[in-house]
Amino acid sequence: MLIHSAAQVLTLKGGPQRGKDLGDLGIIENGAVLLREEKITAVGSTAELQDAFPDEPDVDAAGCVVMPGLVDPHTHLIWGGDRAAEFETRLEGKSYLDILAAGGGIISTVRATRTASIESLIAQTRPRLLRMFAHGTTTAEAKTGYGLQTATELRLLKALLALDDESPLELAVTFLGAHAIAPEYKDNPQEYVKLICETMLPLVQLWWGVHAPHRKNLPFVDVFCENNAFNLEQSKEILEAAKALGFPLKIHADEFENLGGASLAVELEAVSADHLVKTSDEDIKNLGNSDTVAVALPCTPFGLGECEYTPAKKLLEANAILALATDCNPGTAWTESMQFSMALACRNMGLTPAQAIAASTINAAHAIRRADRIGSLEPGKQADLLILSVPEYRHLGYRFGTNLVKQVIKRGRVYSVDVGYYRTA
Amino acid sequence: MLIHSAAQVLTLKGGPQRGKDLGDLGIIENGAVLLREEKITAVGSTAELQDAFPDEPDVDAAGCVVMPGLVDPHTHLIWGGDRAAEFETRLEGKSYLDILAAGGGIISTVRATRTASIESLIAQTRPRLLRMFAHGTTTAEAKTGYGLQTATELRLLKALLALDDESPLELAVTFLGAHAIAPEYKDNPQEYVKLICETMLPLVQLWWGVHAPHRKNLPFVDVFCENNAFNLEQSKEILEAAKALGFPLKIHADEFENLGGASLAVELEAVSADHLVKTSDEDIKNLGNSDTVAVALPCTPFGLGECEYTPAKKLLEANAILALATDCNPGTAWTESMQFSMALACRNMGLTPAQAIAASTINAAHAIRRADRIGSLEPGKQADLLILSVPEYRHLGYRFGTNLVKQVIKRGRVYSVDVGYYRTA
Repeated sequence: MLIHSAAQVLTLKGGPQRGKDLGDLGIIENGAVLLREEKITAVGSTAELQDAFPDEPDVDAAGCVVMPGLVDPHTHLIWGGDRAAEFETRLEGKSYLDILAAGGGIISTVRATRTASIESLIAQTRPRLLRMFAHGTTTAEAKTGYGLQTATELRLLKALLALDDESPLELAVTFLGAHAIAPEYKDNPQEYVKLICETMLPLVQLWWGVHAPHRKNLPFVDVFCENNAFNLEQSKEILEAAKALGFPLKIHADEFENLGGASLAVELEAVSADHLVKTSDEDIKNLGNSDTVAVALPCTPFGLGECEYTPAKKLLEANAILALATDCNPGTAWTESMQFSMALACRNMGLTPAQAIAASTINAAHAIRRADRIGSLEPGKQADLLILSVPEYRHLGYRFGTNLVKQVIKRGRVYSVDVGYYRTA
Repeated sequence: MLIHSAAQVLTLKGGPQRGKDLGDLGIIENGAVLLREEKITAVGSTAELQDAFPDEPDVDAAGCVVMPGLVDPHTHLIWGGDRAAEFETRLEGKSYLDILAAGGGIISTVRATRTASIESLIAQTRPRLLRMFAHGTTTAEAKTGYGLQTATELRLLKALLALDDESPLELAVTFLGAHAIAPEYKDNPQEYVKLICETMLPLVQLWWGVHAPHRKNLPFVDVFCENNAFNLEQSKEILEAAKALGFPLKIHADEFENLGGASLAVELEAVSADHLVKTSDEDIKNLGNSDTVAVALPCTPFGLGECEYTPAKKLLEANAILALATDCNPGTAWTESMQFSMALACRNMGLTPAQAIAASTINAAHAIRRADRIGSLEPGKQADLLILSVPEYRHLGYRFGTNLVKQVIKRGRVYSVDVGYYRTA
């Protein structure tokens, strides 16, 4: 299949785009992309590819931008219930950490998740996944973490694998048993750390071998390193135990307080360090000297009505690899749209549209270790791409609150997104 | 047709909702709405309406919220071209007023609009209108103002009437010849004021009688009262001339500087005063003692990456009638989604979800003088309503960046909005 006549094809080839090199889109004007089965086989000008492949079935992308599918490298996609009432409470002045300390926040979602069957969890999560895909996310990371007990955490893993199998959107799964101290261990958090290290992690490793034998890599293991969650020492203990078992690592660092999580990520060669709002200059320097991807989640301060965002410019000056994600979750940021994350990154983190695009494609692919097959339009990569109903790439960032995707192509299959409506009666 | 079994029907009956009374949704749990032709004929519980109308064709709204169609009372919907490049310039540090002073901003859109044919203007605007409708806006105000010369301003009026006729979304038209000083009059702005008062306004009045004889009311006349646009005296001159001709009035007041536009609106009994970011306590008091609707446009500071929003709480304390709008325009806020405006109003203006909903329905209808037929679900009103795929109203505000509408019903006709995707190949 030949997608041709695109106003712009954004290739994003090469990468990761480090520091100030972020934003190289590799634009081909009047571009074309040739797909065969599930792969990209050629990328070039429309003239050149139409000449070379005259009889190919075609998709006319005139007036549109063609780019790699968006990659969302940090989501808490699966949960039971909602926190709409808590949202109202926050508008009345309670802080997120106050609510967490009072047994609300994450713990209220944990209650709703523990009591939900796997069928119910899948049914509640499916519309979110569908909404993500319609907004152009072709691959997303998805974490467990609203179980905080062995059986529920495994149920969440199982549900995520089922959703991955049924949906065109691909999931990169993360085990986040260390999302909060389980309520049963409130007065003895160290016991919960022990449970994670000595029971949960070995069990997940075994379970994965049995339930996901066709997935060559273990899931990521992540820790919420924060006051009222896991301190630096506990985070280190958990991540070291995970590393010893062969899990690739992620960390929630410096969302509300600087505990040193970002430098811990570098020390342990984590794949990514995420949030990074209160990160110190020293930590930023360490990230810049590492291959740990710095994942900014601007939807979270936005969702909380806060003014402080990840210091993206400092991270780029320090030569870090910057990626964007939604953080989609029921407490602070219920949004499925990477496009919105990009619009925020431009306005509140000072990225250009080109930088936001690179941070949401090739660099985001690096943040989940899939850059070998997704994140750019290059021969041999998976045919995951978007046709946007915009005449040039800067409309991403410039426009906000709506969905600019016209068609999503996933593993070579074309899905149309209806931006409009149809009359039914 | 009977829409039944809704988790919540939000009636918004009565109104306008003044001051601290804002946010009375008139909720009916397990509610139903009966439609006949283009009107609402009954609103009540599902049990009661199913008993009374057992043979009615039905729409099952189980698990959903049913509410009045959203009303967007301030948009610059029609324009040529885009300002994506200028957006990048702003990210590099130039202010909106700097760009305006340098001949960019509104004037660059004026150039693109003047050179576009009416067919091209309609074709460029149609997708925006469609996107608004898909996001639940069933009636929108739409301004001219990118012509700034008689012929182009009339072409914009004509295009807006054509779009109103072809689209299920209804438009309330506003003449905004006073959007900026036309470039030809840069060195002699008073001459442009004279042109508006002595030529444009009388001509628009005549033109309207010929081209829109079935529309009983004249369009609104609006002025951008701001430094580098029209000062207070010029604004007054234009609005008084318009009032003498029978036009209902609107004003852009206090977006960047306080020039006194809000109190002028009150003095002239304008239908609304819009923006109101830099409004003084004295002006707020005057608004609170008037029937002039205070229209907040939170997408504009958001779009500009600014932190100061309309002081909604002060306006409510002063007993003002508060409404929300998108301000959809190519310079500062290209968004078609009233849902996003509501999400911002909760986080950045301190409204509760219920207040944001009332400000986007019944109060917004008052801001365009259509509350007699839209803005609430009451017998006798037009059948403009939404079915949202959410279990309770607070999801509006709580969730952001996506579209929560499942079906739009306009004048009794049902349109489905596709939140997902469908496989085409």
